[in-house]
Amino acid sequence: MTVGIVGLGLIGGSFAKSAKEFGHTVLGFDLSEQTYLEAKLFSTVDGVLDNASLGKCEVVLIALYPSAAVRYIQEHLAYFKKGGFVIDCCGIKRVVCDAVQSIADENGFMFIGGHPMAGTQFTGFKHSRSTLFKNAPIILTPPDSVSSDILMLERLKQFFIGLGFGSVIFTSPSEHDKMIAYTSQLAHILSSAYIKSPSAMGHKGFSAGSYKDMTRVARLNEDMWTELFMDNRDYLSAELGILIDNLTEYKSVVDSGDKAALHTLLREGKEIKERVERS
Amino acid sequence: MTVGIVGLGLIGGSFAKSAKEFGHTVLGFDLSEQTYLEAKLFSTVDGVLDNASLGKCEVVLIALYPSAAVRYIQEHLAYFKKGGFVIDCCGIKRVVCDAVQSIADENGFMFIGGHPMAGTQFTGFKHSRSTLFKNAPIILTPPDSVSSDILMLERLKQFFIGLGFGSVIFTSPSEHDKMIAYTSQLAHILSSAYIKSPSAMGHKGFSAGSYKDMTRVARLNEDMWTELFMDNRDYLSAELGILIDNLTEYKSVVDSGDKAALHTLLREGKEIKERVERS
Repeated sequence: MTVGIVGLGLIGGSFAKSAKEFGHTVLGFDLSEQTYLEAKLFSTVDGVLDNASLGKCEVVLIALYPSAAVRYIQEHLAYFKKGGFVIDCCGIKRVVCDAVQSIADENGFMFIGGHPMAGTQFTGFKHSRSTLFKNAPIILTPPDSVSSDILMLERLKQFFIGLGFGSVIFTSPSEHDKMIAYTSQLAHILSSAYIKSPSAMGHKGFSAGSYKDMTRVARLNEDMWTELFMDNRDYLSAELGILIDNLTEYKSVVDSGDKAALHTLLREGKEIKERVERS
Repeated sequence: MTVGIVGLGLIGGSFAKSAKEFGHTVLGFDLSEQTYLEAKLFSTVDGVLDNASLGKCEVVLIALYPSAAVRYIQEHLAYFKKGGFVIDCCGIKRVVCDAVQSIADENGFMFIGGHPMAGTQFTGFKHSRSTLFKNAPIILTPPDSVSSDILMLERLKQFFIGLGFGSVIFTSPSEHDKMIAYTSQLAHILSSAYIKSPSAMGHKGFSAGSYKDMTRVARLNEDMWTELFMDNRDYLSAELGILIDNLTEYKSVVDSGDKAALHTLLREGKEIKERVERS
């Protein structure tokens, strides 16, 4: 299969490396000529992805920030292979799918929202690796025309399982954005807020695993996350509100010295955690 | 050396196992006869720690909750070896040290506040292991009489390094409690609050590493943590207040849609994280 990859950063570079490893022909493009040449030098890509070669690709993976991904698709409508898959890799889905789903239909290619659930706190081609997605889930948000076609879903599934993913989850853009606001975006904001206590500078020697866990993702790419957060403001704000309310409840029982109430809050948290793990 | 251990749970059991492994004679006591017999059966302890044998112990480690640790010391004042070390293992230090420091002086034994910075989300003797403290730090809060005696500090240090600890940190009970409110207690409350979002039940397939990190310690022992939190209300409440304020600031820029302000908040968080890691 010929796979086109737009953007050869951490995600695009890792897709290129795993696609090569699994025997696909890989055509790549990156705004940075330097990055493209590096990928070519190491045979991570077989050739350049341009208007002429786009039409050869059964699958095009777009590993750019949301606004850039939408722009790339809008500017290359005429060049995608008819009947081929165009799949983005953005951390939010509504803003991308809403912008391109109907123009994809009009131009005869299949657009599928995608979100590989893997990454590191590092960015760029030099950190990409063929094993980044090994056993990770990928979330796909296909349009109704694809969702209702079981053979099409199976083709998508086999493609990603063939790149090393552990599972393929189909859902709607809205459900994706709601869940990701909780499981990923909230965690990143929290980590960023946690590290801002004046106590952080003195933590050495006092930090057990829990502190490390809480602050790990504070080292984030602020350009990318600002865009992702802003494009998911409604769901993210709701999760932030819930967390602030919950924390305020713990603080008020700590302040009032109500031991029984604190005990109840902690027990409830433990029981929910146990229930969630079992589910 | 003869080491006495009071309380054979996760921490006391692990101390017993590592002390045995490093060649000490271990005398143990647990309120549960069953637990003591299990420890004896597996040769984790050599014999029982009681009023008669307490006086043989150069070091007594007390691995109980704070209130129980204080009570044990108050009730055994006459039996500790003169000139010996009595060291607690509680997660907070002011409430323990304040209660027993002066009566230790009056009764001729040296009380040292201690906090091994290791643990798991599991409790009880069955989870204890000789390697629990391997390379972990232990924080000690000795009284002035010991702090000023460099040979005494060296003896304490060698004892814990000899059990496998990676480092020994000397500080004051107040400084300990302030730092632990941030690095450990706040993390546990946050984890407990985080899991309470209604979104938690649907997380499967949407959870990358950050969600797992944030909710790991929600599975806590609510009896122990209620006591630890309540005994450190002032510092813990201050940290909760700082975190809630910081989160509220992120929420308000998300709500207002101020991209530049959000970018600044995230960049600041990243820079602080980098500075903290380098320090």
